[in-house]
Amino acid sequence: MISSSRAMRCAVSVDPGEFMPQLDIDPSSNRPAYARWLRHSNDITQQFLAIGGMADFISLGGGLPAAELYPLKAIQSATERALSHWGTQALEYGPVEGLPALRDAIAQRMSKRLKGRFTSDNVIITSGAMQSLEIIGKVLIDRGDCVVTQHPTYVGALDAWRAREPTYVPLDWRDRQGTLCSDLRQSKFVYAVPNYSNPTGVLVPTSERVHLLACAARAGVWVLEDDPYCALHYDGPAEPALMTLDCAGLGGGAYAGPVIYLGTLSKSIAPGLRVGWALADASMIRMLTLAKMASDLSGSMFSQAVAWQLLQDDIESSHCVRIVSAYRERRDALCAQARAELSEWFEWEVPPGGMFVWMRARDPRIDTDVLYRFAKEEKVAFVPSSVFYHAGQLNNAMRLNFTRGAPAQLREGVSRLARAVRRYLNNHA
Amino acid sequence: MISSSRAMRCAVSVDPGEFMPQLDIDPSSNRPAYARWLRHSNDITQQFLAIGGMADFISLGGGLPAAELYPLKAIQSATERALSHWGTQALEYGPVEGLPALRDAIAQRMSKRLKGRFTSDNVIITSGAMQSLEIIGKVLIDRGDCVVTQHPTYVGALDAWRAREPTYVPLDWRDRQGTLCSDLRQSKFVYAVPNYSNPTGVLVPTSERVHLLACAARAGVWVLEDDPYCALHYDGPAEPALMTLDCAGLGGGAYAGPVIYLGTLSKSIAPGLRVGWALADASMIRMLTLAKMASDLSGSMFSQAVAWQLLQDDIESSHCVRIVSAYRERRDALCAQARAELSEWFEWEVPPGGMFVWMRARDPRIDTDVLYRFAKEEKVAFVPSSVFYHAGQLNNAMRLNFTRGAPAQLREGVSRLARAVRRYLNNHA
Repeated sequence: MISSSRAMRCAVSVDPGEFMPQLDIDPSSNRPAYARWLRHSNDITQQFLAIGGMADFISLGGGLPAAELYPLKAIQSATERALSHWGTQALEYGPVEGLPALRDAIAQRMSKRLKGRFTSDNVIITSGAMQSLEIIGKVLIDRGDCVVTQHPTYVGALDAWRAREPTYVPLDWRDRQGTLCSDLRQSKFVYAVPNYSNPTGVLVPTSERVHLLACAARAGVWVLEDDPYCALHYDGPAEPALMTLDCAGLGGGAYAGPVIYLGTLSKSIAPGLRVGWALADASMIRMLTLAKMASDLSGSMFSQAVAWQLLQDDIESSHCVRIVSAYRERRDALCAQARAELSEWFEWEVPPGGMFVWMRARDPRIDTDVLYRFAKEEKVAFVPSSVFYHAGQLNNAMRLNFTRGAPAQLREGVSRLARAVRRYLNNHA
Repeated sequence: MISSSRAMRCAVSVDPGEFMPQLDIDPSSNRPAYARWLRHSNDITQQFLAIGGMADFISLGGGLPAAELYPLKAIQSATERALSHWGTQALEYGPVEGLPALRDAIAQRMSKRLKGRFTSDNVIITSGAMQSLEIIGKVLIDRGDCVVTQHPTYVGALDAWRAREPTYVPLDWRDRQGTLCSDLRQSKFVYAVPNYSNPTGVLVPTSERVHLLACAARAGVWVLEDDPYCALHYDGPAEPALMTLDCAGLGGGAYAGPVIYLGTLSKSIAPGLRVGWALADASMIRMLTLAKMASDLSGSMFSQAVAWQLLQDDIESSHCVRIVSAYRERRDALCAQARAELSEWFEWEVPPGGMFVWMRARDPRIDTDVLYRFAKEEKVAFVPSSVFYHAGQLNNAMRLNFTRGAPAQLREGVSRLARAVRRYLNNHA
């Protein structure tokens, strides 16, 4: 067991809440104070989920799939059959860990895809991978505990853990200072999105993955791998998962290593089902089960039964071919339009997969938190970089999503954004 | 704003985790320590959710509705129509607060039922009322903050808040010591299940509800009212909700008082949909929305669309008539059998509603934690009293559920329980 003094050596975090600090917390209220963490929260994700439903807005903000591509007919059919097959079982409180048949199906699918040995004891079904992040925070983080994460990192993970009040140390994949092992030793776990990272779209090379695993093994910490985008590759397949690399070194028996792998049907089928999972050592799954029990008793058996049927039907194989082709076209459309209209002010790499282009301002006058306000006036949204940082604000970049809109919409969104930049710079010149 | 010194005057809590303390936390592990709260957790609810699906077990344990009475056909039909009506919207990430049409429907329904003025701004949809409990804990509790609750209290609420590490003070409805106001003043909120309380089945009289509200208003604290059983009344209607009593004193405008009212479709339709809600002051709903965003991004639009259709169809009216009649028969069957077989060792009141009979041991030799092990050997389960106590263990009572099984099963369950008691006392005499 590792002593709590781990946390003491961690860097002090700077809260990422500057973006939307004007939360409606009324200090003149005569009611009891809200919990501390809310003062450092922000509502950016809530805004994007709301904007996602507004017809006149072009959202380059959220991480939303293309709604018009959801396999609606296949889901209608699967739902009908699932309710017939499962009957009242689909209407029950279920086991906290999830519908047993779905856990089995995920274990089999993951064993094949990740080249490991997983049984249903290695699986917990959660309400999207987001709930996996939340319960991992509950299980591992006490106030002040340290988490090593990519920098910038997924805003949802920062949200999920904010109420646990961790500190953060940036993960340097290349380990340029040679401090990765000692950074890890101070932490409870390391969090990474190695395939087409959110927000940067980066595909981390295998050599860096191997190095991280080696350091984590030496430090004895958990390795949290979030892999929602693995199927969304546009220029060749993803690199092997950390989980795959870890399994390669193991003998027989079900997986009992340090990697906690998160998967989801949200990107490959549809997010509205809210079906994600964590794949891990069975002892970790038992702890996650206690944490999930304390969050919502059990997930929806109803949508898990539908998800099970969709996996039986192998919807993902055909559906992913379709969306990968569409998303590739969208990525290219957005990047081409951006080259024409934004490259004076921003630079970026074309991402080989995932859902996002990460644009860094070339122009030092640009603060993307401020630009965001101008963009909203032009009815276009993006995510400013500040919300992705846990340790020091960086206001000079933005994340653009290219999966939500059709190519023509994306081009129009980029044009609106260019107008917003121009107005912003005229106003602040 | 109330200072954090509130917490300092609170009674120190005794953890309710004695029941199943043998959690698989391996101190010899070379991995980082789990979060503190897990050492005080228990897996009783997980056990009941698992036992609920075992054919050879008679569960008098969980708070599970009768599976064979779920309105399966109505739900199949509603699902088909909901997917046609909502199309891909049902497959989306939704707004964090929930499907707008469902929030509207709940606001209207609650306005009518509770005789208040609620708009959708007063409503957040959650994954069962359990998730409302969890996010309320996130929004209001910092470590050491005090919560006033009924004693014994719902184990799910204790679970939901355990990771926030509150302290507890027992709620004495009758305020025999005259200390209720000062107890409340030390706390962030008071938690109550006034209609057919879990676990005791008690229906709190209106006069005591009025007194609690008056004290809470004077103390300036939130009042959390959990009302899952209001429709399950067997001997006449429930008393007016705390929310109704509070609304009675208000003028026009949407509700902005201190009551946070929790409702659910789990008892009146089916738990597998995982649709519950919190009804409160719009400023509280905004904070709960941030907390929910950090828990699971958004609920399932899929099951919310189905729930919306079921409310449009007004399934609850007809379904509740049916289950109330069945549950009354089951309550009477269980109580009659218990009078014949258990009254030597236990005493109880016949509950006027809800799902539970609370049996207190007459025989001082009986420790229900120990009895539980004998009962499991007889393939019958109940919930021992210890898990419902936050401040001091009481091992001399048990909660029996009467809604899950048909009358013959309940009678058999009671007989098995009587056998378990007999074996236990023979072993320990």
